[in-house]
Amino acid sequence: MMVSRRLWVHFACLCFISFYGMYLLYKEYEEITIRRMQQLQNLKHRPDRFTVIVREIPLCIEHEARDCCVDHFFSKHYPNTYYSYQMVYNTDYLDELVKQTKSLARKIEDLRETSIAKKSKSKLSLFDFSQQKTSKVALLEEKLHALCHKIHQLQCKDMLNKKELPVAFVTFKSRSNAAVAAQLQQHSHPLLWVTELAPEPRDISWRNLRVSYRVVPLYRLGVLIVASLLTVFFAIPVTAVQGIAKYEKLKKWFPPAMAVQLIPGLNSIVTGYLPSVVLKGFIYVVPFAMFAMAKVAGCVARSKEEIKACNMVFYFLVGNVFFVSVLSGSLLDTIGNFISHPKAIPSQLATAVTAQADFFVTYILTDGLSGFSLEVLQPGLLIWDTLKSCCTLDHRRVKSPYLYSLPYFRIIPFVCLSILIGMVYAVVAPLLLPFLIVYFCLGYVVYINQIQDMYAITYETCGQYWPYIHHYILLAIILMQITMIGLFGLKLKPAASISTIPLLLSTLMFNEYCKMRFLPYFHHYSLKDAAENDEFDEKCGVLEFHYENAINAYCPPSLLPVSFAASESSSTPLVSS
Amino acid sequence: MMVSRRLWVHFACLCFISFYGMYLLYKEYEEITIRRMQQLQNLKHRPDRFTVIVREIPLCIEHEARDCCVDHFFSKHYPNTYYSYQMVYNTDYLDELVKQTKSLARKIEDLRETSIAKKSKSKLSLFDFSQQKTSKVALLEEKLHALCHKIHQLQCKDMLNKKELPVAFVTFKSRSNAAVAAQLQQHSHPLLWVTELAPEPRDISWRNLRVSYRVVPLYRLGVLIVASLLTVFFAIPVTAVQGIAKYEKLKKWFPPAMAVQLIPGLNSIVTGYLPSVVLKGFIYVVPFAMFAMAKVAGCVARSKEEIKACNMVFYFLVGNVFFVSVLSGSLLDTIGNFISHPKAIPSQLATAVTAQADFFVTYILTDGLSGFSLEVLQPGLLIWDTLKSCCTLDHRRVKSPYLYSLPYFRIIPFVCLSILIGMVYAVVAPLLLPFLIVYFCLGYVVYINQIQDMYAITYETCGQYWPYIHHYILLAIILMQITMIGLFGLKLKPAASISTIPLLLSTLMFNEYCKMRFLPYFHHYSLKDAAENDEFDEKCGVLEFHYENAINAYCPPSLLPVSFAASESSSTPLVSS
Repeated sequence: MMVSRRLWVHFACLCFISFYGMYLLYKEYEEITIRRMQQLQNLKHRPDRFTVIVREIPLCIEHEARDCCVDHFFSKHYPNTYYSYQMVYNTDYLDELVKQTKSLARKIEDLRETSIAKKSKSKLSLFDFSQQKTSKVALLEEKLHALCHKIHQLQCKDMLNKKELPVAFVTFKSRSNAAVAAQLQQHSHPLLWVTELAPEPRDISWRNLRVSYRVVPLYRLGVLIVASLLTVFFAIPVTAVQGIAKYEKLKKWFPPAMAVQLIPGLNSIVTGYLPSVVLKGFIYVVPFAMFAMAKVAGCVARSKEEIKACNMVFYFLVGNVFFVSVLSGSLLDTIGNFISHPKAIPSQLATAVTAQADFFVTYILTDGLSGFSLEVLQPGLLIWDTLKSCCTLDHRRVKSPYLYSLPYFRIIPFVCLSILIGMVYAVVAPLLLPFLIVYFCLGYVVYINQIQDMYAITYETCGQYWPYIHHYILLAIILMQITMIGLFGLKLKPAASISTIPLLLSTLMFNEYCKMRFLPYFHHYSLKDAAENDEFDEKCGVLEFHYENAINAYCPPSLLPVSFAASESSSTPLVSS
Repeated sequence: MMVSRRLWVHFACLCFISFYGMYLLYKEYEEITIRRMQQLQNLKHRPDRFTVIVREIPLCIEHEARDCCVDHFFSKHYPNTYYSYQMVYNTDYLDELVKQTKSLARKIEDLRETSIAKKSKSKLSLFDFSQQKTSKVALLEEKLHALCHKIHQLQCKDMLNKKELPVAFVTFKSRSNAAVAAQLQQHSHPLLWVTELAPEPRDISWRNLRVSYRVVPLYRLGVLIVASLLTVFFAIPVTAVQGIAKYEKLKKWFPPAMAVQLIPGLNSIVTGYLPSVVLKGFIYVVPFAMFAMAKVAGCVARSKEEIKACNMVFYFLVGNVFFVSVLSGSLLDTIGNFISHPKAIPSQLATAVTAQADFFVTYILTDGLSGFSLEVLQPGLLIWDTLKSCCTLDHRRVKSPYLYSLPYFRIIPFVCLSILIGMVYAVVAPLLLPFLIVYFCLGYVVYINQIQDMYAITYETCGQYWPYIHHYILLAIILMQITMIGLFGLKLKPAASISTIPLLLSTLMFNEYCKMRFLPYFHHYSLKDAAENDEFDEKCGVLEFHYENAINAYCPPSLLPVSFAASESSSTPLVSS
């Protein structure tokens, strides 16, 4: 009887945590929405406010081109407000040429620099050698000029028209008209003249614009299938490599590994930690693999690719770290078990979760804390950069500062996984929470530093990640409630078990409400805001300047005039996503 | 080995039926889309093309009213194209008064008519009685005048403003601007100034406009829960009534029933058919119950209420006629069984479906054919009308033609259920199909007659039902495939069973494609079509006439000037949904 009564305390805690969690989520959603609005207000002059991306432009039969179609359609249907357009072209060959030109220009500069250095070193000797170099430079310069000429030829209108894609950026004379054009169905055929608000110019994924809008769903489905397969069958390559990478086998195949035996104690450490290191290595690689997959999913913006990768990595971690650790066994078995006995999910979870509390304390302490310290050191990027500079032997590049943007897809899922673990154990094993607080405090300190000092901003989403994080936290709350339903059932407390079900339903309803209340802020640009900004700009007389700016911002990078002073190119971030 | 090979023929048939079914569905969707576009083109002058319904209008703090807010907002953001607006008021009391006035006016007319008739019959006698009647008429007329005065008072602006609802119909000077306003997010707060294209004036559900937009999801959830409970627990009242309505018990409680024994043979018929009649009676009542529920779900249009009811009735029938007949047992047991052993669904279905082929032949023959003959006779409506006229004793009403609109929610689900039965048995027991063909031919003949001669059009949805019917047929195909997966499994043919899964997936993908390709035609009015119609009208100079017409069409019925000649009122359909 005593146990019974104490279990109601657990139920009260569960209710309190659920409702307080939802309250905090609501407040945070509200706060982030307000911040997003403010940030959008600050960035109101950005070209993407005036521009719409149009896909699936039909071919004009008369001119056998698409650009006249765009001009005709928009000047007809938006007569007073349409400003201009920028077609997108398939510039594979041109991109290649521009790349060649740049590397050639860099080579010439290198040669010149070395010859000047050598000249200053030994002014008298080897005049002949220097002359030979000069003639080589002259040869390369001739080649460069030929290339530039070819690029100029390809960049002219007639040549480009052959490579037209059915995609264009259309600029309007006001923000409100861009908002109208983006949200409206233009043509009665829903797969023609598909419009949406254009992403920021620096955020555009030019490669994906080549993918036809009609096959994008297929690409997405393919990526989803591959990502699911990777998630479900992840254990197979890991165990295979773990089987190979045993110390005994390593000794046979790679005799220098014997050296480990010479140092006392190292042997046991290697044997003990090697499988774990292999697993960690695989998990470290997964976000990059997911990101590579997300890149082929046909998103028009790089930010959307990253969000997609972030999503896939989170579900990967929930499956392969949380469920595999909790339920001990391969994910495939777990899923099969869940599908064949869905009623048993809560009780299975409850039994397993209570047994694994200690494991997760260790997990948070080791993986979490080591993760943050590694983040500060950025070993992966360091090694990658060193490797790159060693391979290319391009000394100029080593000198340039390497600056990357924050890899959200690698960081958010791991932090959200910790939130999930904390949520699930909040009622079952609250002793885990202090460790988690230390983890989050450390994370806060580390990331404040990283964001302020280490990373460059390559695009601005204005809080587009929050709805996803909100979703992950809500998933954590739901998982906690399902676990507790099982636990109350195990402890022979069916009344509490049944009373948790309305709690679960109210959590789901809260999610629906949040979607209705806040999600449109993150998807649409409302007419009222757009019109107010337009009005203000018109009063100041700067509206014209802004929309003229906008159309220039959406010029594809390979159509920009080629610059011979290629030194700028290396200072931009190399991996800018 | 022979059996094995023949099973591949079944698999080939399954593939053929699935793909040919999908092909026909695609063609039909295309055909109906084209017809919808044509019909919309024919109805291009309808007021709903120019009008948008706005909900959640905020209160203007200065004037403590909402109408000034509407005018201000739309004249600011649509300066050249906004025409006018019509607020919606909470007119409960006014409606009641108008109703009283009408019945009073009818009473007066009745009295006059009878007095005239009596006068002509007996011109000389009972002058006194006639005078008495005339004084009574004068009294009633005075009362009527008082009522009309009161109504006029209530209809004036000041009184109405107190009863303002946050809903308005806003009319634009062109179709394209109405389309823009309907599809755009007006305010950054997604729950303010919510706009959608207005339904036809005669299609508006004025009662539901009183429901706040924010609580509509709750109403919907409530209706969904009640409808699910009715579906799942439908068997309980039926078996209860069947238990009571046994002939032996009836004899005790209602001795006149003994008369049945006097006619030889009738006794056994009554005992045998009574439970079946009870079940049929309950099933006959269900569509009306569902329709009553759909009416409180907060849809702004009556057509949407009917579609909702149609949906709920279809799932009710699938649960309570198909699954209960096939799996013999209560629906609750079946659902419980399916949830606890989801892997066993295909094999369970396969065993049960093959066993019940004869039953469904009988079902199609009896219920289907009797259903159509009953439809021609319309016994329900006849009885309802007779009852009504008997109760009210209103002789005028009996004279008026009673004309109802086609009760889609009662007919479509039953026909779709037959399609589902035919689909599921197409491979397993093809002998059922000829009966089904007879059924559909008869249905075609009956409904051509009914639609042309019996029913009045009360609103025009332009094919809005088709996406739902498409969905039901696709569900039938999927159910057939699941059954066949089970059947191949039972016949120890796992290869065929596994090969059916890609077929199932491709069916699901086909559904997604259809949604993407055709569904927008049914939800949005595209800018291009709207602009073309506008242009044409402007050339003819009739655009102004149409939009001026539009705002008058959306005047709430209780705000129309009260007419004393109430004779018109009875000729409009009474139950017009």
